[in-house]
Amino acid sequence: MDERLSKQLEFALEMDKEKSIGRQTYILKGARKENDAEHAWHLSLMTLLLSEYSDETIDIARTLALVTLHDVIEIDAGDTYAYDSKGNATKREREVKAADRIFSILPEDQREYFRGLWDEFEEAKTPESKFAHSMDSIQPIMLNDASGGLAWREHGVFAPAVERRAQNTIRPGSEKLYRLAMEIIEKNVEKGNLKRD
Amino acid sequence: MDERLSKQLEFALEMDKEKSIGRQTYILKGARKENDAEHAWHLSLMTLLLSEYSDETIDIARTLALVTLHDVIEIDAGDTYAYDSKGNATKREREVKAADRIFSILPEDQREYFRGLWDEFEEAKTPESKFAHSMDSIQPIMLNDASGGLAWREHGVFAPAVERRAQNTIRPGSEKLYRLAMEIIEKNVEKGNLKRD
Repeated sequence: MDERLSKQLEFALEMDKEKSIGRQTYILKGARKENDAEHAWHLSLMTLLLSEYSDETIDIARTLALVTLHDVIEIDAGDTYAYDSKGNATKREREVKAADRIFSILPEDQREYFRGLWDEFEEAKTPESKFAHSMDSIQPIMLNDASGGLAWREHGVFAPAVERRAQNTIRPGSEKLYRLAMEIIEKNVEKGNLKRD
Repeated sequence: MDERLSKQLEFALEMDKEKSIGRQTYILKGARKENDAEHAWHLSLMTLLLSEYSDETIDIARTLALVTLHDVIEIDAGDTYAYDSKGNATKREREVKAADRIFSILPEDQREYFRGLWDEFEEAKTPESKFAHSMDSIQPIMLNDASGGLAWREHGVFAPAVERRAQNTIRPGSEKLYRLAMEIIEKNVEKGNLKRD
């Protein structure tokens, strides 16, 4: 086997570990918590389903690449819960270190390409990365709603924190999905799943 | 919420169930078996990584859509192990029935689009669907190799059956990856993980 293919296979097997990185969101109406691989697949599917709601024209292949790759650095850095302020203080540093190691497995041209995609997602400035963030943030809101707010109640999450996150991460990609998220949040405040004060 | 978005959200939540459809392949060197959502994500990632080995030029967006959607009908039909001849005798009928129900959740235009993608994958005639099948079949061979042939040994799988499947499903999309699969199979025969006779 040639060296290029050998490096690519090593990377493909390294990726297998993403299936063991746990998230806080419950799936299947509360049966168990989701892992990063399942989450990323769900974002690909939702991108195919909801791309018409992107406020800017997006390249679908690039958006799918962004959501597929966005969490691979968590193989080293772990998942940081969106409402964990302590974890979020060190998140960027841990993730950059992880990206340096993980993408270094690849052949040089692909190292640059994959790292570029991850950097693009992190910067959230292109239409594709903005919409990828819309997907990344609305998916757990939908699943939380489906489980009766299980993860929100478990962590005592406050509605303004979820609203602020929706404003910062869903709205830049899609006004329509931002408004949907705000509706779901308000419904969950009324049900007592999210705290207002 | 308008009717179109309401149907799309229902479909997105229905898809959550794919995370509970188990496969026979072990992940993480044998820690546990994989589910369909993890598998489909891994195929997206491998498509981004290995598309240079497609023997025909492929559209990446379409290939990613095919691998993302290819197993959603298993939400109703369940996973049929590649080497289960009894299960495979009824597979097509069960899956078509599943496709009829699952895609009917969607708004009409998307029902046709998603069903068309699934039909395209099943027919395996376009360059994209041939390469999607290459990914779908080489991924469990790689994971079986990584776990010391755990699923193969558990099911007493014979090498010629795996070789025949590689010939029919990996080779039409990629001669290079077919040869890689044959190398891995032979190595596992030598190790006693696959039976030769």
